[in-house]
Amino acid sequence: MISNNDIKEAYARISPFIRKTPIIESDFLNDHLDHKILFKAESNQITGAFKIRGVLNAIYKLHEKKSLPNKIVAYSSGNHAQAVAWVAKHFDIKAKLFMPASSAGIKMQIVRDLGAELIVTDTRIEAELKSKETGAKPGNIFLHPSDNDDVIAGAASLCYESLLDLEKENNMPDAIFAACGGGALISGTYLATKLFKKKIQVFAVEPKIANDAARSVKKGFRVGYIESPKTIADGVRTLKVSARTFEYLKKLDGIIEVSESDIMYWTSWLMHLLKINCEPTAALAMAGAFKWLKSQSSPKKILVVLSGGNADQESLKLIWQKDRLKKIPKI
Amino acid sequence: MISNNDIKEAYARISPFIRKTPIIESDFLNDHLDHKILFKAESNQITGAFKIRGVLNAIYKLHEKKSLPNKIVAYSSGNHAQAVAWVAKHFDIKAKLFMPASSAGIKMQIVRDLGAELIVTDTRIEAELKSKETGAKPGNIFLHPSDNDDVIAGAASLCYESLLDLEKENNMPDAIFAACGGGALISGTYLATKLFKKKIQVFAVEPKIANDAARSVKKGFRVGYIESPKTIADGVRTLKVSARTFEYLKKLDGIIEVSESDIMYWTSWLMHLLKINCEPTAALAMAGAFKWLKSQSSPKKILVVLSGGNADQESLKLIWQKDRLKKIPKI
Repeated sequence: MISNNDIKEAYARISPFIRKTPIIESDFLNDHLDHKILFKAESNQITGAFKIRGVLNAIYKLHEKKSLPNKIVAYSSGNHAQAVAWVAKHFDIKAKLFMPASSAGIKMQIVRDLGAELIVTDTRIEAELKSKETGAKPGNIFLHPSDNDDVIAGAASLCYESLLDLEKENNMPDAIFAACGGGALISGTYLATKLFKKKIQVFAVEPKIANDAARSVKKGFRVGYIESPKTIADGVRTLKVSARTFEYLKKLDGIIEVSESDIMYWTSWLMHLLKINCEPTAALAMAGAFKWLKSQSSPKKILVVLSGGNADQESLKLIWQKDRLKKIPKI
Repeated sequence: MISNNDIKEAYARISPFIRKTPIIESDFLNDHLDHKILFKAESNQITGAFKIRGVLNAIYKLHEKKSLPNKIVAYSSGNHAQAVAWVAKHFDIKAKLFMPASSAGIKMQIVRDLGAELIVTDTRIEAELKSKETGAKPGNIFLHPSDNDDVIAGAASLCYESLLDLEKENNMPDAIFAACGGGALISGTYLATKLFKKKIQVFAVEPKIANDAARSVKKGFRVGYIESPKTIADGVRTLKVSARTFEYLKKLDGIIEVSESDIMYWTSWLMHLLKINCEPTAALAMAGAFKWLKSQSSPKKILVVLSGGNADQESLKLIWQKDRLKKIPKI
């Protein structure tokens, strides 16, 4: 169980070390859609993604208890690995990361550059199994990217920070949209909204071809993939949500599924309009938000969580090979 | 002649209406190069580029004199056009823009969207001639993108704002690098550094295949192109610098020429490291700065002016078709 206090404490614990990322918007987009869309630009975070929030919270808590491990062990295709490597360096302890060979070269390079040991595996399953095995050795800990209450409370600080700012400005949104991979971000987002008085709807967004969370909630039990789904949103190529995050997913206002072409379309547009480097997994949230806005009969104010900016070259090549900016977004 | 006061007044005049853009840096890059590189992220400016500073200063001065025109007329392949359209809308007057057919579709769309009249011409020369002709009609004014003291003073506010910030932090750079097209930005940058006590070197950067300024300074008289040079840095495809900016160009500490592949390499890297949308003309400045840093025997602190973030799809397609991030920058 994650309490309101756990989230507040997580934010107090990590905020001196991370960046307070801005909330930005595009007049062009607001005018065109006749809705107000606020973007939390977490692409601007240290290591380029929200992942550092959860990892830092979990490891800092161990530091407070004077039980820092010698080595943090984890598996990841990118953003969680970078966060673990950064936090290990911060506490001057070791990190060992297992990354599938399909991970972006630049993400591997940055992990190495932060001083972490990197093991490249053939498959994601192999990375998972080997990291759990290594993490169980004495002196080591295994840090799961989502199946961990401290990681979820850290991820919750992203939405908590955003809503604190928006509440001050009397600018609270009607709904919030975030990508769903393992489920830590969206679970944290759900929990953080409960700290505020205003009723705010929370929606998860998934690629149609990686819709394990949506199918799980529909069926009432967890279903998943044996092999990583090949969505361009590489941050949500998880095989299955955890039992822990599934409990929160069931309470959401909805899980929206979007096509690969919609994800690529919004990656182009958000980079163009917001002048940021937006990874497809971040644009995924906007693709879902757009679908929801289409169904609304009155102007809405929404918050879209742009979870990261670590777009790799292969994705950007695919995205920019076509002029998606020709078709202006219209509702 | 542009006085120190002209620059201070320009900044005071326009700063309530524009964004104060951040100065950012990358620890990864600083560590790798063993120099400190500060980036002025003007890509975050309204209309996505520094151009609004000059246009707003020029038109605001006319407003102060109660001699606003009915219509602003200009030619541009993109950023100047967007700035003129925005400023015209701001003052509720008309704008008529002449843009060559080779301009990016999305830039044309945004100009139209801001309510300006758009005329697409076959060539850049045609856009220049027609806009000057139209600008001479009663009630109209023609606003040159660089051959205008008020435009230069407005552009100077970019460097002035940066150095005010850095002086406060006791963080003044040894040298500043900015792209050179028509020459307003680099002339303004040169003039603004003179307002500060510290001796700061100022370097212009040009593509090798669009090196009219470098050749002009070498020869002692202005030379240029008959047709727009086909550099990927579309913001510096000007045919020739003006007599006005040539006077400042002669006083710079140098004009650095860089290859097209260096421009594309740095566009990829800056987007990746800084998590911003960086147009090739902005990365051009870093390509020149890198060349200069290579020749230095001790660690330097420099300011690189990222002039804009309006990268179009055709450029981004070219840039991301190759994995330039594989080759980590090394001095």
